[in-house]
Amino acid sequence: MNAKKIPDIIIGRLPVYLRALQRMADMGLKTTSSQELGEHVGISAAQIRKDISQFGEFGKQGTGYSIEYLVNKLREILKVDRIWDVAVVGAGDMGHAVANYQGFMNRGFRVVAIFDSDKEKVGHLIGEFMVEDAETMIERIRGLGVRIAMLAVPAAAAQGVADQLVQAGVRAILNYAPISLNVPGNVKVQCIDPSIHLQRMTFYL
Amino acid sequence: MNAKKIPDIIIGRLPVYLRALQRMADMGLKTTSSQELGEHVGISAAQIRKDISQFGEFGKQGTGYSIEYLVNKLREILKVDRIWDVAVVGAGDMGHAVANYQGFMNRGFRVVAIFDSDKEKVGHLIGEFMVEDAETMIERIRGLGVRIAMLAVPAAAAQGVADQLVQAGVRAILNYAPISLNVPGNVKVQCIDPSIHLQRMTFYL
Repeated sequence: MNAKKIPDIIIGRLPVYLRALQRMADMGLKTTSSQELGEHVGISAAQIRKDISQFGEFGKQGTGYSIEYLVNKLREILKVDRIWDVAVVGAGDMGHAVANYQGFMNRGFRVVAIFDSDKEKVGHLIGEFMVEDAETMIERIRGLGVRIAMLAVPAAAAQGVADQLVQAGVRAILNYAPISLNVPGNVKVQCIDPSIHLQRMTFYL
Repeated sequence: MNAKKIPDIIIGRLPVYLRALQRMADMGLKTTSSQELGEHVGISAAQIRKDISQFGEFGKQGTGYSIEYLVNKLREILKVDRIWDVAVVGAGDMGHAVANYQGFMNRGFRVVAIFDSDKEKVGHLIGEFMVEDAETMIERIRGLGVRIAMLAVPAAAAQGVADQLVQAGVRAILNYAPISLNVPGNVKVQCIDPSIHLQRMTFYL
């Protein structure tokens, strides 16, 4: 299996399948079909079969997919069969929300540190985390071996912080700041900007 | 121009172009090129020219695009040349963060109400908004004529609330709950689930 050969658009759908399958497993279901999974995620059964077949033979014609097997396989493919440590930068409302977010549980992630440059915020508790001084961030992230960060700082500060994160060894950034980041080719960035998501929908209203 | 004929994937890129162009305008720039815009958003110049040409002729070979003209045109296409009222459901950490979010300014949206089913939260202030009782939600949203909602409730409650929102006339839902929603064909849904975004990146680590 060569990561380079699988289109990014397919990789993008796998976490959605995984989430639905984990939910089915939580409900006690044992097997499913591409039809049923498709209804849950709003993607055609044919597309699901095609996507999943990229990674090998998972189901038998007529008997469907074993949910447990497919969950384990998808977790392995997406490398979330382990727990990744995540750093949060920015202790404002959004940093607060992501640091306390319960949705990382069983999904492969745990927040391990939160940083802010505002000395007023440093030392304060957010849930179980004490906000750390952004001046110590590079050293701390290196020390912890963190590869993933969530960036929840204002747009004007985001590129500077991203540069520091890359310097510290971070290779995946989930960017909440409403600005596109320039990063080296070996660093992945995903953006969460509610205005962008809303504007995708107003076109159709 | 027929909305049905423009692929959804192109519509998805237009808000990203608009955000970068608005930032250029804020910096006082007057014109740009597909090359320059491409560097800002990490998309090839050829793709940008192709996307933009779907909507007519915006630039002249050699002189580039007028930023102001393109901003106005994209805002018109995406229907954010007006202000859309948005309701927030769920007054937890995430509802709190999106209700106070500053990034909606000049992007076409404003929050007008926030609801929660927890009587302990009802009546409390979040920024300038008083949390309203979810029991009054359908009537209030109908009265306000709100078409867009952000759903920040636990996964177990999300489908039920989505059904109520649709009943109230909402036609676009930005879903923060970690679950796929079933909605009628005339309702648009976009999902924000940080675990999904993170899992898209761990594949490459």
